[in-house]
Amino acid sequence: MTGTVAVNGEVRRLEDLRLQDFLQSFFFGAGFFETLLVEEGAPMFLARHLARLRESLGAHAGCVQPPPPDVLTPEAVREALSRCLEADAGLGPRFTGVAKLVAGDGRLLLSFSTPPQRAEEVILDTVEDRCYRRGDPTLNHKSVSYLRQYAHLGRGTVFVNEAGELCEVPNGNLFFLVGEAVVTPPLEAPCLPGIIRSVLLEAGRLGERPVVERTVHRTQVEDVRGCVLTNSVGLALAVPRLLGRELSGSHALAGQARAVVREYARRDV
Amino acid sequence: MTGTVAVNGEVRRLEDLRLQDFLQSFFFGAGFFETLLVEEGAPMFLARHLARLRESLGAHAGCVQPPPPDVLTPEAVREALSRCLEADAGLGPRFTGVAKLVAGDGRLLLSFSTPPQRAEEVILDTVEDRCYRRGDPTLNHKSVSYLRQYAHLGRGTVFVNEAGELCEVPNGNLFFLVGEAVVTPPLEAPCLPGIIRSVLLEAGRLGERPVVERTVHRTQVEDVRGCVLTNSVGLALAVPRLLGRELSGSHALAGQARAVVREYARRDV
Repeated sequence: MTGTVAVNGEVRRLEDLRLQDFLQSFFFGAGFFETLLVEEGAPMFLARHLARLRESLGAHAGCVQPPPPDVLTPEAVREALSRCLEADAGLGPRFTGVAKLVAGDGRLLLSFSTPPQRAEEVILDTVEDRCYRRGDPTLNHKSVSYLRQYAHLGRGTVFVNEAGELCEVPNGNLFFLVGEAVVTPPLEAPCLPGIIRSVLLEAGRLGERPVVERTVHRTQVEDVRGCVLTNSVGLALAVPRLLGRELSGSHALAGQARAVVREYARRDV
Repeated sequence: MTGTVAVNGEVRRLEDLRLQDFLQSFFFGAGFFETLLVEEGAPMFLARHLARLRESLGAHAGCVQPPPPDVLTPEAVREALSRCLEADAGLGPRFTGVAKLVAGDGRLLLSFSTPPQRAEEVILDTVEDRCYRRGDPTLNHKSVSYLRQYAHLGRGTVFVNEAGELCEVPNGNLFFLVGEAVVTPPLEAPCLPGIIRSVLLEAGRLGERPVVERTVHRTQVEDVRGCVLTNSVGLALAVPRLLGRELSGSHALAGQARAVVREYARRDV
């Protein structure tokens, strides 16, 4: 993480921030976050990320203290981001990397990290089937109460609910090529309403195939011919192996997904 | 919360702590906490709290960065606590209130708050039956990824799993008088391995009745004649109404539970 941040739009140094101004998030995980890809100084899908953040804050009114509404607009965040990039020679106006927003304690914290090494593919060979509950609404919000996911990062884990249905991975949503459709689990699985997920569902097609929400049971993995992991930093990553099965269709599917995402990002919708 | 704290045994002012020293807890909820009752300067069941904290840290090695082992001993925490109480005239060596330990980011943070208004009883009339999953191991650890519980504090909520079994409340465990036994849900419900819960199970009896772990289905509430909520600050609170049923036996049961807890605390076991 880099040293220049913004708090409610004001450019600050990370080392000057006091823990006591973020205690509700720190003690109780009572905050929400967004991770955005920034390319050449431009944050991708910013309006969508902020809409999701506002929705989570609205669903937790009286529990999580929201930032002032005027700092949660795309214009305000774009302005704060620009000022941070200008203020820090290590970032600069053409910064490419990751921006993170954390909302809680009446504050919106914007921070930056340098681009992660971009993976081309991810192998998913581990099942965690003890902790996701079908219909759990808390897992529809990207809160800083994130330990369950954090503990599984980088371990190739797929979360499976008590009905044996695939839900998501710690850092993204899943899309499966099954039959002649591209299928992603419904929010009730549960999973996060991912930004890239919403773009692909809105697009409605990948090549000739429809993109639909549908339950995918773990026994159906044998019918899956391709799989893609989506998130806001990697966009769409091929999953060449899913729970022991080699999937020859993953790379092509990931390429199609990235193209759709890029097109939406270009139009900024 | 008061302004004097200790970090890894060193007395500090809360306002001097930097957010950047607690980022893993803040961003990812990757930390664990304990809430202790302090009476006349003495922390109740300190060794048990620290054993639980060490167990959670051990179960998350490589994910949550533990404090140095030497700050996690009862002697070290007692010493840090004494130094804080001496250093702060608002606390003082005879302080009675609540101490909180947070472990994560390689640090043990000790902080204090003044005694809450002590409730004598709690009414539990709300069911949240969408988010607890039977056997979920993550809910056996008191992590700062606490939003699910935090959002329900003070709302009289009982968490119920997908099998319709009662689990716990946001801030404590439950004991039920059913037949001639006092019954508490098993850890697999899931629930936290509460300190007061463990004391009552070890005691094994409340008056003439055995205390046992056993599944309690919500349909069995009609057989419940008394209910007690246990936690480390309130110790044992009567629940005179549980999901619409008036329970005449709750106050007597809570009194018995408190007496057992007090006896264990007096012997410091």
